[in-house]
Amino acid sequence: MKTYKLEDGTKVFKYGNPIETEAVVAGKIKTKLENDLDIKFENGHCEISIKLSPKDAVYGLGGNLGGINKKGRLYESYCTDEPLHIEDRAKLYGAHNFFIISGKETIGYFIDFPTRIKYDAAYYNENYFNIEIYGQDFYIYIIEGKDEKEITSKFLKIIGRAYIPPKWAFGYFQSRWGYRNKDEVRKVYQNFRENGIPLEGIYLDLDYMDDFKDFTISEERFDDFKEFTAGLKEDGLYLVPIIDAGVKVEEGYSIYEEGIAGDHFCKDKEGKPYEGVVWPGKVHFPDFMKEETQTWFGLKYKVLTDCGIEGFWNDMNEPAIFYGGNALDEAIQYAEESKGKNLDVFSYFKLKDNFTNLANKDSYYQRFYHEIDGKRVSNDEVHNLYGYYMTKSANIGLSNLLKGKRFLLISRASSIGMHRYGGIWTGDNSSWWSHLEQNIKMLPSLNMCGFFYIGADTGGFGGNCNGELLTRWLQLSVFTPLLRNHSAIGCNNQEPYAFTKDVLINSRNLIKARYSLIPYIYSEYMKAVNHYTLMFKPLSFEFKENLAKEIEDQMLLGNELMIAPVCESNCSGRFVYFPEEMLEVSFLDEDMAISIKEKGIQYIEYGLEDLKFFIRKNSIFPYVKPSKNVKELNQENLKVLAYVDSEAVYELYDDDGESYEFTEGKSYSTKIKINKKIDDYEIIVDNDNPSIKNISFKIIDSNNNIEHKKISTY
Amino acid sequence: MKTYKLEDGTKVFKYGNPIETEAVVAGKIKTKLENDLDIKFENGHCEISIKLSPKDAVYGLGGNLGGINKKGRLYESYCTDEPLHIEDRAKLYGAHNFFIISGKETIGYFIDFPTRIKYDAAYYNENYFNIEIYGQDFYIYIIEGKDEKEITSKFLKIIGRAYIPPKWAFGYFQSRWGYRNKDEVRKVYQNFRENGIPLEGIYLDLDYMDDFKDFTISEERFDDFKEFTAGLKEDGLYLVPIIDAGVKVEEGYSIYEEGIAGDHFCKDKEGKPYEGVVWPGKVHFPDFMKEETQTWFGLKYKVLTDCGIEGFWNDMNEPAIFYGGNALDEAIQYAEESKGKNLDVFSYFKLKDNFTNLANKDSYYQRFYHEIDGKRVSNDEVHNLYGYYMTKSANIGLSNLLKGKRFLLISRASSIGMHRYGGIWTGDNSSWWSHLEQNIKMLPSLNMCGFFYIGADTGGFGGNCNGELLTRWLQLSVFTPLLRNHSAIGCNNQEPYAFTKDVLINSRNLIKARYSLIPYIYSEYMKAVNHYTLMFKPLSFEFKENLAKEIEDQMLLGNELMIAPVCESNCSGRFVYFPEEMLEVSFLDEDMAISIKEKGIQYIEYGLEDLKFFIRKNSIFPYVKPSKNVKELNQENLKVLAYVDSEAVYELYDDDGESYEFTEGKSYSTKIKINKKIDDYEIIVDNDNPSIKNISFKIIDSNNNIEHKKISTY
Repeated sequence: MKTYKLEDGTKVFKYGNPIETEAVVAGKIKTKLENDLDIKFENGHCEISIKLSPKDAVYGLGGNLGGINKKGRLYESYCTDEPLHIEDRAKLYGAHNFFIISGKETIGYFIDFPTRIKYDAAYYNENYFNIEIYGQDFYIYIIEGKDEKEITSKFLKIIGRAYIPPKWAFGYFQSRWGYRNKDEVRKVYQNFRENGIPLEGIYLDLDYMDDFKDFTISEERFDDFKEFTAGLKEDGLYLVPIIDAGVKVEEGYSIYEEGIAGDHFCKDKEGKPYEGVVWPGKVHFPDFMKEETQTWFGLKYKVLTDCGIEGFWNDMNEPAIFYGGNALDEAIQYAEESKGKNLDVFSYFKLKDNFTNLANKDSYYQRFYHEIDGKRVSNDEVHNLYGYYMTKSANIGLSNLLKGKRFLLISRASSIGMHRYGGIWTGDNSSWWSHLEQNIKMLPSLNMCGFFYIGADTGGFGGNCNGELLTRWLQLSVFTPLLRNHSAIGCNNQEPYAFTKDVLINSRNLIKARYSLIPYIYSEYMKAVNHYTLMFKPLSFEFKENLAKEIEDQMLLGNELMIAPVCESNCSGRFVYFPEEMLEVSFLDEDMAISIKEKGIQYIEYGLEDLKFFIRKNSIFPYVKPSKNVKELNQENLKVLAYVDSEAVYELYDDDGESYEFTEGKSYSTKIKINKKIDDYEIIVDNDNPSIKNISFKIIDSNNNIEHKKISTY
Repeated sequence: MKTYKLEDGTKVFKYGNPIETEAVVAGKIKTKLENDLDIKFENGHCEISIKLSPKDAVYGLGGNLGGINKKGRLYESYCTDEPLHIEDRAKLYGAHNFFIISGKETIGYFIDFPTRIKYDAAYYNENYFNIEIYGQDFYIYIIEGKDEKEITSKFLKIIGRAYIPPKWAFGYFQSRWGYRNKDEVRKVYQNFRENGIPLEGIYLDLDYMDDFKDFTISEERFDDFKEFTAGLKEDGLYLVPIIDAGVKVEEGYSIYEEGIAGDHFCKDKEGKPYEGVVWPGKVHFPDFMKEETQTWFGLKYKVLTDCGIEGFWNDMNEPAIFYGGNALDEAIQYAEESKGKNLDVFSYFKLKDNFTNLANKDSYYQRFYHEIDGKRVSNDEVHNLYGYYMTKSANIGLSNLLKGKRFLLISRASSIGMHRYGGIWTGDNSSWWSHLEQNIKMLPSLNMCGFFYIGADTGGFGGNCNGELLTRWLQLSVFTPLLRNHSAIGCNNQEPYAFTKDVLINSRNLIKARYSLIPYIYSEYMKAVNHYTLMFKPLSFEFKENLAKEIEDQMLLGNELMIAPVCESNCSGRFVYFPEEMLEVSFLDEDMAISIKEKGIQYIEYGLEDLKFFIRKNSIFPYVKPSKNVKELNQENLKVLAYVDSEAVYELYDDDGESYEFTEGKSYSTKIKINKKIDDYEIIVDNDNPSIKNISFKIIDSNNNIEHKKISTY
């Protein structure tokens, strides 16, 4: 064990000979220390037991199911393709091993380890947070700070700045596994335009490929793809195709043949390319841990970027395996042997389970290998890095192919570090009300682990959504950086126009509201990422009342807004906890109703027809008229709603939205300051954004006095 | 179509030639009518579409998942063994086709039909409640009344009085699939006694049987069962064994041989006894629709009543079928044919799904037959009656065997009508917080459909419960007539002593509180059943504010109490909506803290260590000292907590708790009336219950004046 101290005071405990994960990139080591941690090694595993007080909370752990406070549940970090997000599921697609124990002492922990870790967060025993690390070689970072926010900021700094998408990635996207051909895609686009619903782009699922093969385009269904893409782009519409991790084994398929020739695939123990079965049937998995493979695969996106594509989603990269090795043969063998027998019930269950449990077996991951520094390492030992390296590979390729132009890139599997290369969607959820509520709780936890370009499949991926659920979900998702309505093949249609007329009208209102909010959302995104702060914060990070800790279906967005979506059917509103006096805003197509809500608990009416949020006191909220896409957003007449009793300041960040020039200081700032005077407001605007010419102010104070002002700014 | 009017005004619409279900037993037909309903027949199905206004609510539908207001979901009445109660599951164990549309007009509907009905309660289109009846022969009852309560009462009357269990059935029961032998059962009992936790009895799951065979007792694990049972009973402990629907096919097994000899089993289309596979391997299903079979099977319980058993649970009586016909052979055949092939993904899914979906296929139920009035009728056509007739059979047998002594009898599958013969548990739920919340919502809906002796598997059947969830669940379950903690084999132990010391202490407090409440719970049970009123009422049945309609995690128990359990982890309390001023009671081992809560919304502290409920104004709540079981409950010194501003009355019902003499008027009544005078209370007690000698009163008014009084009553 070796101990170091980073410049920011973070202690680093190094055990054994860890595999370097690239999770931590900054925070130069400063001094050596002699401390040790109270941890136990047994049978090659490490056990850590942290005593908890009844009032302690646990925050973080990223994209896991459960509350904002992670206490009272089991978790497992082992990236898994899990289609059924039921309440007691311990592992999903991500491995996000940063958490904060918050109580009398508040301390952050990051376990930098690329394979399985299990957490029992006061589940079996309410007095302990028990952690089992499946190995002996890892780093533990212990991060101290005055509160959760400071600790998180320190952590965000050492893991490096998050991925920055283009501004158009903040638009509304429609998606569905099952837009089978160009006509169907075109029809979706037409339906949006005809119904006056803004639309930024359409995600393409496996349907566009030729026989599930990466970097192919079906000649039959998506012929003349370049022309098709160009035509849509001319209308301001982006296509975002999927790329899967596995490469189909097929003679004559160039990616397969290049992969074999270039030695790019993971191997089995005999040294032959490992075969798993996924969508295309038998596949090989690129060994993304090899730099040459990263480069090779990353540049393959050229097939699509050459057609004008600038956005991708990397899927199945846990990696998901339907079956591998001889598991299926064994299941069939056992079935044959069972034939004609009067099976007892346990033999029957075995027979059935052999088939039911074929997917993603631990044994598959133990039986294929990566090459790291010339050494063979089983996927199991570095399992959680597969999605990371695939997305890094795509990022390297796209950066190269798109030459300084930003691109949209999201991944399903992830570990900390991947946040620098792409965003994530929260995986294959269902059209369940509980998943809408889960969506809220996941957002601040993901931010804490570095992931900012995030969003759930709005309306739910699996199952049949209905109009009410879609509308309620949109009332949350219009605040998330990634806003995508996505559903699975076989489920009912889930586009805003697929339900009744009321649903269409309400969804349109909400998507238009999203576009009105983009300047604010983009500004908050960029400031959070660039300043290493949270975009979505638990109430408890700002307010210290007990209720702020317990209310987990509300959260703060930036420093200005509180949001409190309705997550239940048949409700005309919900209980909202106001940790301080706030301004209630019912935002409808840039029109709005406002009213002041005092500190405490109130039942707030919240129908389906508008967007509701709350502005904190002495805060400034900027917005614009909606548009049909980001390109057409017009900031010339910026509007500001402000709730000011003494002084409020806001800095609206902006940049070109498409290049990386902002890293060289080429960004815009609109600083707005409002001072309440005895019977007027003093407004000071310092604007260097040429696209903003006028600002219209609507300012309200606690006494409900409303002032309107208009200022020319440029 | 023929239309009649019952004496209570209920309209009966008869379509085609319905199979008589025995659901409706009273309400003599009075007059013929000429009305018709607006329904459509197509392809042998019937479709009914009811237009809904946005504010309409739908109540009823019994043991389905979803809210108290059934809008916004899909339901299916087709009794099914469903182990995974996820949010979008449409069908479970019961078929409870009574519902009320409540709005401008409030009307009750009962569809008397023994097989599949599907409901789309404003799911795909928020403006319609669509019903699809899978047939053309059925009755529809349309029940009018001034409100939901009156309509429900009328319905409860025509379906006949609910089952009355013995008073001991209101105690606390421990259960687990996996108490493998007498020693393990004895150990459970000892643990309860050593820890001072009241215990009424222990449920025995399949473990006690010899090789899953009904009416056998394992010689190896439960030898000398009669002696064992007697010994426990002497200590005041009841055993409640399980009985499954399927009878093992095994030469030499007497039940099987008698069944064959007596022609008691359902037939396949060739007229041979139908073979399905369940726990014992191949089984035949008794044709409970035949009266001779009912009598035959019912009297088989004698094997166990002769050992002193007085309670049973009928399981797997949807009936559940792991596989039947040649479905398994076909799956194996397909597997053989797949051997060695490079399967495309769809062939692979088919191979896998063949095994995964073997259980409870529709085709099984279409391929076995009952004999009704000498005619062959497929199980599919009368599917929802199987649990009903099995439980009727048990009831007939036990009534005969136990000669006027009441017995505990619950069933998993049920349809309306079965409520007269036994209670139900709500099936194989999971250790999920959402299932605790679901439990609340199911209770009033079940009451509306006639089921009063009801309760969920406290702590959850599947999955691993923890101490917090068990404690929170007990805080609800101590109010339900059936109080059973039950868990599945392979899950962690779930007895109150299986967690930490705090969990033990808190559970003990709560179970003791249950015993303190039994006089009230028993009284409310008997009054509800005898007067055809609800024991558990939605708030909206009493209060007309919009919030009363939307708050579904609170309900009324009797006319006196409101309960509001905590259904989330990590909470020190919850929001409670008070539709009127109420008295908050924190009940701890007969000691209590009280405080007045005004109308409105408040955050109520609710820890794990006590039981919280709310007493309505001008209400009287009686309780006693806790005891270790029902037999030892001592009512000599009855206590009363009353919250009185003007006048309050309560009638405490009691009887011998074990015979049916109450039907002949042999019951006790303790009428308590409290009048608030200017500076005193007038108390009038009219008591004919010899076990109650004194009553100690604690009376509080809205001004927080507390009075103590003691009265001798007998």
